[in-house]
Amino acid sequence: MYRSHSCGELRIADTNKEVTLAGWVQKSRDKGFMVWVDLRDRYGITQLIFDESRTDASIMQQAKALGREFVIQVKGTVIERESKNSNMPTGEVEVLVKELQVLNASQIPPFTIEDETDGGEDIRMKYRYLDIRRNPVKNSLLFRHKVTQEVRNYLSNLDFCEVETPYLIKSTPEGARDFIVPSRMNPGQFYALPQSPQTFKQLLMVAGMDRYFQIVKCFRDEDLRADRQPEFTQIDCEMSFIEQEDILDIFEGLTRHLLKTIHQIEITKFPRMTFDEAMRTYGNDKPDIRFGMKFGELNQVSQHKEFSVFNSAELVVGIAVPEAANYTRKQIDELIDWVKRPQVGASGMVYCKCEADGSFKSSVDKFYDQGDLAKWAEATGAKAGDLILVLSGPALKTRTQLSALRMELGNRLGLRKPHEFAPLWVIDFPLLEWDEDTARYHAMHHPFTSPKQEDMHLLDTDPGKVRANAYDLVLNGNEIGGGSIRIHDKETQALMFKHLGFTAEEAQEQFGFLMNAFQYGAPPHGGLAFGLDRLTAILGGQETIRDYIAFPKNNSGRDVMIDAPSTIDAGQLSELHIAVDLK
Amino acid sequence: MYRSHSCGELRIADTNKEVTLAGWVQKSRDKGFMVWVDLRDRYGITQLIFDESRTDASIMQQAKALGREFVIQVKGTVIERESKNSNMPTGEVEVLVKELQVLNASQIPPFTIEDETDGGEDIRMKYRYLDIRRNPVKNSLLFRHKVTQEVRNYLSNLDFCEVETPYLIKSTPEGARDFIVPSRMNPGQFYALPQSPQTFKQLLMVAGMDRYFQIVKCFRDEDLRADRQPEFTQIDCEMSFIEQEDILDIFEGLTRHLLKTIHQIEITKFPRMTFDEAMRTYGNDKPDIRFGMKFGELNQVSQHKEFSVFNSAELVVGIAVPEAANYTRKQIDELIDWVKRPQVGASGMVYCKCEADGSFKSSVDKFYDQGDLAKWAEATGAKAGDLILVLSGPALKTRTQLSALRMELGNRLGLRKPHEFAPLWVIDFPLLEWDEDTARYHAMHHPFTSPKQEDMHLLDTDPGKVRANAYDLVLNGNEIGGGSIRIHDKETQALMFKHLGFTAEEAQEQFGFLMNAFQYGAPPHGGLAFGLDRLTAILGGQETIRDYIAFPKNNSGRDVMIDAPSTIDAGQLSELHIAVDLK
Repeated sequence: MYRSHSCGELRIADTNKEVTLAGWVQKSRDKGFMVWVDLRDRYGITQLIFDESRTDASIMQQAKALGREFVIQVKGTVIERESKNSNMPTGEVEVLVKELQVLNASQIPPFTIEDETDGGEDIRMKYRYLDIRRNPVKNSLLFRHKVTQEVRNYLSNLDFCEVETPYLIKSTPEGARDFIVPSRMNPGQFYALPQSPQTFKQLLMVAGMDRYFQIVKCFRDEDLRADRQPEFTQIDCEMSFIEQEDILDIFEGLTRHLLKTIHQIEITKFPRMTFDEAMRTYGNDKPDIRFGMKFGELNQVSQHKEFSVFNSAELVVGIAVPEAANYTRKQIDELIDWVKRPQVGASGMVYCKCEADGSFKSSVDKFYDQGDLAKWAEATGAKAGDLILVLSGPALKTRTQLSALRMELGNRLGLRKPHEFAPLWVIDFPLLEWDEDTARYHAMHHPFTSPKQEDMHLLDTDPGKVRANAYDLVLNGNEIGGGSIRIHDKETQALMFKHLGFTAEEAQEQFGFLMNAFQYGAPPHGGLAFGLDRLTAILGGQETIRDYIAFPKNNSGRDVMIDAPSTIDAGQLSELHIAVDLK
Repeated sequence: MYRSHSCGELRIADTNKEVTLAGWVQKSRDKGFMVWVDLRDRYGITQLIFDESRTDASIMQQAKALGREFVIQVKGTVIERESKNSNMPTGEVEVLVKELQVLNASQIPPFTIEDETDGGEDIRMKYRYLDIRRNPVKNSLLFRHKVTQEVRNYLSNLDFCEVETPYLIKSTPEGARDFIVPSRMNPGQFYALPQSPQTFKQLLMVAGMDRYFQIVKCFRDEDLRADRQPEFTQIDCEMSFIEQEDILDIFEGLTRHLLKTIHQIEITKFPRMTFDEAMRTYGNDKPDIRFGMKFGELNQVSQHKEFSVFNSAELVVGIAVPEAANYTRKQIDELIDWVKRPQVGASGMVYCKCEADGSFKSSVDKFYDQGDLAKWAEATGAKAGDLILVLSGPALKTRTQLSALRMELGNRLGLRKPHEFAPLWVIDFPLLEWDEDTARYHAMHHPFTSPKQEDMHLLDTDPGKVRANAYDLVLNGNEIGGGSIRIHDKETQALMFKHLGFTAEEAQEQFGFLMNAFQYGAPPHGGLAFGLDRLTAILGGQETIRDYIAFPKNNSGRDVMIDAPSTIDAGQLSELHIAVDLK
């Protein structure tokens, strides 16, 4: 061992101890007759002191030559500091150095290794091994480890068994695009990397494993939006002989356990909301309920006058922005411009100020009188001093636009407090959703989701109305988990594939193994999966996942540190029976 | 929840309770007026009783129609059994059924779901979800979970942080063959699946993570021998600011922890042996030291007579088989045939019986007298009643042959007791090994392994003699882990690549990211990796890993259950910019 103590360990009680430390030079100050060095490792920083009157001249010389990020080993005596630093745990002591060994020199790093760095995203990614030395990234990775340990302990204590499922599986066209892997031993054939272990965890239920989980990498070859990764990690779970209520119970318990052990926050019972209610009230199936601004539908109280924009709209809907009645014309125009940006896509916005004196002042005063506007205030829950913002148009689109505006205002007004946690179950998702591109229904969750028994009769007549036993766990406006009760009999599964546009042959070809398995005693089962990257980020009070992943890829799916992907040689391709085809 | 209790839970104290159970029909016995059903779930078996005099006629009918592996739910009363079964934890009670619901019927399974099944390997793999219902497989998976939990707890308590490294990385020609993954977003370029997270864990050390581990899937596209899988799991570990002794300490501690928590076996200190000694004494770098039959080198005491076979041999070496002097001619001939099989490849074998009266009887009595043979007995440690078996030829080859014979005899004589555990560190491995095929040196461990400082001067003159700071942990004749102290400076790493036949450009192209990282303050570091599949199997008292993997692949790399790999459609290939090329 190169050290007797870590750099975060020494305290005033260690005074006079002879110690050996090793770590990185965070910074040094050279006052001529004295040199101070902050020595850093994962555990903290300890101040070293080299003093002309007490340190060998040769070591003094060496100390003066130390650069940032040099790796050194020192031996010395713990002494009490003259000027203590109460901001750091080791701040009462320093080590008077007697021996110094440079274990490895360092070039000047391309950005400063400080909590606030001067390095941009690109350079930090290229030198990720330096970026991780910074506390915000290092602590995120340590935090992630703590979260996964707590998850594993909680689930293991409840008899969940972690089972590793294979990474080299079979490609299926349903769902997102697969990453594929050519098989050398089976010419012309390919494995796929799993988008999730869905079918395997269901087979484990057929196998009688009863309670399964796995913290597992999953892969989707999709065009990457900001903050989405081609490989990501799921906490994947499945249970047998349960109903939806049991799953919600267990995983509400898991989330509660995490909030308690990690943040000492106790939340007794998570609220629940149906998908329909979430869409109507927040325009969004993952509402952030840390703040209000619930949607007020205004069709009834706005379509009786001669304002044709509203009269022709499927939906007129508003929110009350708290204490914003005093916004200037310029501020309101900026908001209007914001909703008209292509990313949001509204064609305009109506506003109504609820003045302190109880009167209203709107952008549509020529159509609506004070009595009308009072009803708007009532519908949106606006109080005196609030600003009502109203959008109109096709229902789904308008809700989505208003939801974007609500979230933006939540951010601007500081209502989305990172260390406040508001979990929410969203339940009763639709089974199917219509896809304009392919002109067919797609499974909203996945094709193995069980329809609600009472809605089964609608499958043939009104498929879009069939609700599923599907649920999402939402935390602070982010979907952190989702799942469903699964189909567990061959007939329902075959029916489901039929409704998704599979021929019987296609269903058999792609999912025959699962439907066959259902014929040998499949138990009722269901489960869910958490997105670990996002869960960890949100628990850590962040919305971007990148610092919670040690080696993330950029938006082109590249690892710029190791420079992957890359070309490979012809011999390797030929052994795999494939050729590059750039046509 | 479909049940109030599991099938392994009820005891005599539960008598008279109303309970709900759910599970699989293990078997049923129909005596006409009574039907008994063994109901099974992951947790155990509970006997159900249907009794004409106490059970509804309709339920009685249903009970008689139950087939093996039907999934049912029953409600009933716990009663004391008339004839108790002390072999099962629930054996004192049974449940008198009042309500019965068939949750899912089952076809007749293709093999019996019993500890000893009539199903062959192929059919068991195709219906792996049924195979896992069998106790030996189910218990292996539960055992694996327990092992990984203990590993994680042990390492986390020692400040090791589990960090996930990427699965989509860069292909490098060094080492085994990579599985590759075409990149859709980067036409003509490919990711590789990791053979191990080696370079990433070293970068995490450069990043200051100090103590890292990960239980992680690794991939090697090699021709599969029995009991090797294209995807396998490692417990991957790395530490900074340590020397070899520290690593041996920590991971000896881990292994001790596992033996203690899992088997209540305490082993104080693991023995150590150099690679050279292991090869000389056991002909093998992973000796099973649960039994003796150490090699005795006989050159000195066998090359002074006129037996040209020995005289011309580089090595004459023997073992003493305990209490085998009474083997018949036929038994000995069978052993001679065994070593002459192509898989072993010896050209012949000499024997010498050590008779009870102290005399010797050998197959080469015309060359050697009793005094000579007494020296053989001395060199091999043979006692009266033992049988000395002697091979000769080129040293390495002959040692390998004799090692195979020793292991075979260990098995035959029952000396390899599955529940006896004999760990051993093998240290001081050679840095390089000569490869005849490519006529160059290869890294014996991997190119990042540090040579021993004191052997560095031999790198240019006698590379094969350079020893590495590399070590293997051997358990019961299997390598369960191995690792090394790593190179942590650019110059030594560049020198190493040179000796492995890389040009400077090739080294930079493939491993430039690592050598660059070494320039920014890389700490001294090292680590090791355990093969989890094998570790678990051996701790479980088995030598084959297949039952410890939920969904293994066969020797052609196929998953016969889901039928992967498989062909994929042309559109998918075209999006990935590749074509199948079967020429």
